[in-house]
Parts: sequence; structure tokens; C-alpha cells
Amino acid sequence: MERYDVIIIGTGPAGISAAITLKMRRKNILLLGPRSLSHKIEKAQKIDNYPGLPGISGEDMQKKFLAHIRSMDIEITEDKVNAVYSMGEYFAVQGHKSSYEADAVILAAGMYVAKPYDGEQENLGRGVSYCATCDAALYKGKSAIVIAHSQEDESEAEFLAQRAENVYYIPMYEETGISGDNIEVVKGLVAERIEKRDAGICLITDNREITADGIFILREQVAPSRLVPGMEVSDGHVNVDRQAATNIKGLFACGDITGPPYQYVKAAGEGNVAALSAVRFLAQRMCNVKR
Amino acid sequence: MERYDVIIIGTGPAGISAAITLKMRRKNILLLGPRSLSHKIEKAQKIDNYPGLPGISGEDMQKKFLAHIRSMDIEITEDKVNAVYSMGEYFAVQGHKSSYEADAVILAAGMYVAKPYDGEQENLGRGVSYCATCDAALYKGKSAIVIAHSQEDESEAEFLAQRAENVYYIPMYEETGISGDNIEVVKGLVAERIEKRDAGICLITDNREITADGIFILREQVAPSRLVPGMEVSDGHVNVDRQAATNIKGLFACGDITGPPYQYVKAAGEGNVAALSAVRFLAQRMCNVKR
Repeated sequence: MERYDVIIIGTGPAGISAAITLKMRRKNILLLGPRSLSHKIEKAQKIDNYPGLPGISGEDMQKKFLAHIRSMDIEITEDKVNAVYSMGEYFAVQGHKSSYEADAVILAAGMYVAKPYDGEQENLGRGVSYCATCDAALYKGKSAIVIAHSQEDESEAEFLAQRAENVYYIPMYEETGISGDNIEVVKGLVAERIEKRDAGICLITDNREITADGIFILREQVAPSRLVPGMEVSDGHVNVDRQAATNIKGLFACGDITGPPYQYVKAAGEGNVAALSAVRFLAQRMCNVKR
Repeated sequence: MERYDVIIIGTGPAGISAAITLKMRRKNILLLGPRSLSHKIEKAQKIDNYPGLPGISGEDMQKKFLAHIRSMDIEITEDKVNAVYSMGEYFAVQGHKSSYEADAVILAAGMYVAKPYDGEQENLGRGVSYCATCDAALYKGKSAIVIAHSQEDESEAEFLAQRAENVYYIPMYEETGISGDNIEVVKGLVAERIEKRDAGICLITDNREITADGIFILREQVAPSRLVPGMEVSDGHVNVDRQAATNIKGLFACGDITGPPYQYVKAAGEGNVAALSAVRFLAQRMCNVKR
């Protein structure tokens, strides 16, 4: 498996900024996240306080960021990250599509807004899971519920349905395009809670209860507290120092995931700091290895 | 005297960013610094890692920043700051041209690079001073030495010469344009040290000793450690937390003055954070006053 110098998780202003600075420093990077950058950018009507680009629309900012990374031959790998593990000498990053390895990791995954469902956290690993493609192999002949938050989750549920006996697909969004003989799309439900029962795991909604062997909750992101085992978090934000360092050596964080203010230029500035801290970390590591 | 909400000291990326965000929040601000922004920006050949503006020259960045603040009706007041005093309920900012007052202050004065002359710090207030216009009135019938680092210092020395008996002007730059009957311009000296003697304060150079009643050292900036009495500084940089707060309430710092990395986007990001922290400080202050 290719070992990258740095894996950057997130393609908002923080991740883009980190990628640009790392590329300038000739590091071998992997930039993970949506090619459309961030939903927040796309939707912003007008950004007035990004110095040098007065009154720019979110769409134009997105175009400028994409043009910038294209001019530097930086590519975006579209994958959602399920977990990051510090393996001592390197990091293993578990994506939905693949796994990746790097000497250092920069978390730039943005603000985490989702509220967990009642019963979600208690039953994590006891029927509740966040990555359908990761666990699909375990569902041969079994049933699964998928709570999905965007169209991008559909391919993951379809992949799961190729292994599982049947899949209940609960979209939390309007326009669905999913299809499959063994996929039952159940629209318009309001999930109330998740319960572990003898018959399996049960999703209780406002007008129906569905029981299956497992339930997958697919969101754009995993909460910071669950993303990296052992990483210190306060109020849902990653704890970092002024050099963007977390409590785990070689792991840095920047942008909205580190807390307010939630601003483009603040995020871009922190991405730069995280990148240069990662460069320093890699240089020190190299010295230690050589000694 | 007009009491501003916030005085921003410095017109580099940090100061510009802070001014933009404060203006958006409808604060009454005073932005102090050179209209040409920073020397660092002007001279930068090419900046590759300011997201959204790939490969921009320092000159073009300067133009974009100036256009940005102009579009928001933000003006730059050209003055150098000699000292900032926390008066408890407000701040007094002593400039070379005037004095100013504000509820909060943001230091964005950039990196301080000058090394003090031998004997400079020991004799501060005992013959050594940094602001000729501030002390000019005290020099009636007396002599003064001015060590100057740029053409902009000439008007200050000329003002001093209107009061003082005679002025020795020691330029540390090439092209001088200063004139006055009682001004002796002494070029090409390498200052070695400053000594307090019975006859006055003495500047010892490589090939001449000059003694006068006082010596003024005019630099683009005052060292952070001397700029604000009581402010915590480490290794020449202002100590700040992740919210850009210094140890003095209502005083914030951002950009190169807070330490490395010395990067445009890092400075701009911190300017934004400092501005929003100042906004929060002003709001809390307002609540306390009302109670």
C-alpha cells in the first residue's frame, strides 16, 4: 500500500489551504473529500471578509479554489473517512471505498452538526455501524437498515444490498434514485430511536418499527470524538494548540473542526499552519529514523 | 477625543483582515499603519499559497487588499505607534502624529526584526527615546541625535529641529532629502554603542563619537516588549491564545507579531479571529456597563 507523507481529510478552505502549502513543500499528499469541496462553500451567497476577494459568491470561491489546486496538480480523492488509527509509526485511514496510510494526518473535516439518534451511541458496535461498505461482507443472508442523508449514500447501500438478503433504505432527503430488488425504500419516516432487542436491532420511527440484523447510519462525517480513538475533544471540537497540533503526535487539525469562528479565512489560515507543522513533524521524524 | 471601538495597529494581511471583519460588524475602527500596507507584501515576488489567488505577486496582492478595503470605505491613517497603554476602562494609543483612544486594540504590527543597539535598552528614558515628535517640546535650546531608518523619518527630525538647538541626523539608508540650517546629516556611520556620560548621551560609531542631550532611534516599529507595558511576550513575539487574546483584557494580537509561520493566509486568518474576539469583548463590556 502506498504510504503518503500526509493525508488531508476534508476539502473545505482548511483542507485546500493545507494541500496547497504541502504541495509547495513537495510532500506526497492524499486529499480526501468531496470534489465539490464543501456544502457550506457551495451555498454561501456572498463572502465579504476573505481579504483580496471582496463580495465573492460561494460558487465563485469554489471555482477559484478548484482552479488553484488544479494549477498545482493537486487531485481530490472522493472518499468518506470512517476512522483514523494512530499505529505508532504511521496512521491508517479507513475510508468507505478504501484504506490509506500516511506518516501524518491533517483533519480538516469541517463542523460536525449531526445530533446522534437516541440509542445510537449506546449500540455502536452492537448493531449500529457507520460504514456499510466496510461491513458488507458480514451481511451475507442478513438484513440491514440504512439511514441515509444524501444521494451519495445510495451507491454504498446498493453495494451492501449485493451481499445482504434485504436492505431497508431510509432516506432523510427528498429525491432518491436508488434501486434494487432487495432494497425497500421507506420514505417520510421520522426516526425516533434505536433499540437493541432479541430479534435484532430496531429502528423506531413515528409510524413504523423496522427490525434487522444491523443498522447503518450514513452521514457526511463521523463525529470528531469517534473519528480518531484517543484524540482529545471538547464540546465536539478537536483540541489543538496554536500550531494546530492535537494530543496525538503527527495528527493535526484545522478549520471548523477546531471550533469557532466558522470563517473561510480563519480556516484557510489554520490549514496553512497545520501543513507547516506537519512538514516540521516529518523532518524531525526523518532525523530520528536516521539516528 | 474620539473614542473608537477598536484601534487596529498594522496594515499587513492581519490588520487588513481584522479591519474588514470589524467593519462588517459595524464597529467604529481606526486602522493605523502605512498606506502602502507592508514592505513585506510590496516586495514579495510571488505568493503561491494564498487559497483562491494562485501565483499572485506581492504588488497585485497589495492592490487587491487596497481595493477590498476601499470597497468597504475603510481608511488607513498613516501614523507610527510608539506605545499602547491600558487605562483600565479603555486604551490610549500614542502615535507619532497624534494620540488615540479605543475600547479595544488589535496589534497586527508584523514581525519585529531590529536588533537593539548596544546600550539602547539600558538608557531608555535616560537619554534614549523612540518618538521625536512626542518629546520635541523638551528640546528647546538642546541638542539631539536622530538615528533614522527610512525617508519617512525625515519629517519627524525636521519637526524636532524646529525646537532643538541642533540635530545630528544619522541616516541608516541611502537617499536622504532632509534639510535645515541646524540639521547636520552624517552619512556612512556604523553605530556601535550608546553610552551615558556626564556631558550627555554619546553615540559611538566606527569613526566618530557624537554627544548630545538626547538620542532618538526611529524605526518602523517598536519592539513588542516595549510597545505595551505589561503585555506578555516570548522570544520577541506576543503571547496569545487560540482566540488571539493577550494577557491584557481587550488587547488582541494577530499575524507575524504572534510568531511563525510568517505567512499571508495565516496572518489573514488570525486577523479575522482577533476581530471577532474584539467584537465579543465589546459586547460583554456593554452588558457589564448596563448592569
